[in-house]
Amino acid sequence: MPTLVLLRHGQSQWNLENRFTGWWDSDLSDKGITEARAAGRLLGEAGFDFDHCFTSLQTRAIRTLHLMLMEMDRLWLPVTKDWQLNERHYGGLTGLNKAEMIAKVGEAQVKIWRRSFDVPPPVMEADSPYQVASDRRYAGVTVPGSESLKNTIDRVLPYYEAQIVPKLREGQRVIVAAHGNSLRALEKHLSNIGDDEIVGLEIPTGQPIVYELGDDLAVKERYNLSER
Amino acid sequence: MPTLVLLRHGQSQWNLENRFTGWWDSDLSDKGITEARAAGRLLGEAGFDFDHCFTSLQTRAIRTLHLMLMEMDRLWLPVTKDWQLNERHYGGLTGLNKAEMIAKVGEAQVKIWRRSFDVPPPVMEADSPYQVASDRRYAGVTVPGSESLKNTIDRVLPYYEAQIVPKLREGQRVIVAAHGNSLRALEKHLSNIGDDEIVGLEIPTGQPIVYELGDDLAVKERYNLSER
Repeated sequence: MPTLVLLRHGQSQWNLENRFTGWWDSDLSDKGITEARAAGRLLGEAGFDFDHCFTSLQTRAIRTLHLMLMEMDRLWLPVTKDWQLNERHYGGLTGLNKAEMIAKVGEAQVKIWRRSFDVPPPVMEADSPYQVASDRRYAGVTVPGSESLKNTIDRVLPYYEAQIVPKLREGQRVIVAAHGNSLRALEKHLSNIGDDEIVGLEIPTGQPIVYELGDDLAVKERYNLSER
Repeated sequence: MPTLVLLRHGQSQWNLENRFTGWWDSDLSDKGITEARAAGRLLGEAGFDFDHCFTSLQTRAIRTLHLMLMEMDRLWLPVTKDWQLNERHYGGLTGLNKAEMIAKVGEAQVKIWRRSFDVPPPVMEADSPYQVASDRRYAGVTVPGSESLKNTIDRVLPYYEAQIVPKLREGQRVIVAAHGNSLRALEKHLSNIGDDEIVGLEIPTGQPIVYELGDDLAVKERYNLSER
């Protein structure tokens, strides 16, 4: 039966520093490395196996996948990396500390940027030190200036339909190692969560979320493997 | 201009123990990890960059590639893994210590198995503890019972022509992280080395061998970056 496992990357340096990260390529913290390995051991011990892996173009997600596969003795599995699975682009908020932001513009405004479904934060300045538009990994990609959660969903779901669904339809077991908001897009779609609710769904770092699917890809069961 | 870099994996546990490894999935030793990282730093500092990466289905080569890419901040590059880039299959010698083998059958016989171009070692027993024929990673592959260097070349070169050459023809910069004998196949082809000589060519672990190619893929220069 097709299975889809969603894995949010382990804690990053900027998660630890409580900064808006988005497309900035913050690496895993030591805790993040430990979380990624623990996810791999947990999946292996629970008897999970995979046929194909998907991840973003961001180091913290790719490394989480590699560390997890190493623990499962599955480093040899095929891995597809694509920018459509990247984190939501936080625009001008990127690099800022959340507490400092609240002190500056007020909690209500920060909450709107973080937690509204379709209001994007201010656009990132072209000369921002956190600008990645000229990073070679995004050659040929129109790097957004800023994204709402809705904008993120609007690029994740077409990718899911085009690249991941065909593998699930073949009965493959797929893992997607990605980010809080790109995984929210998949959770919203698979669990049919409303616009207002999805913004509040917290996806924990390094905890495998398992979707067991029917042949028609209807969801038979969803659970957090770390809570079993 | 197209560039092809060949990188033999860092020292493995079984390299360290001086055992015939072949298709057995011996992981990197601590020294091998250090070698892989050093190769990445060396390539990065020398200004190398890549468009596509190839590796085998064996952990020691894949991990070498990942460690090296991490040092170059290029973990996001596309990676193709295929069994055709695996090490030579050492058949019934797999797992045996080279010194013990010499004591048992004599140095002349071991040298024939190791160093002749087209004499394969004895076939691996079906119930050998080092048998990988039923390993899921080789599903759909006819796992050899044993390979001569010639047998190895006969699977590496068609793969090279079909998968790697098209990328080089587009002017891409390609790295192949693989094994002593799968890389010998490429060295033999690119440097036009005779059957008798290729068996004696030592490819050092963790040292990037650079082939600078013309648009017609003629070799313009070959050098070991670690010796520059």
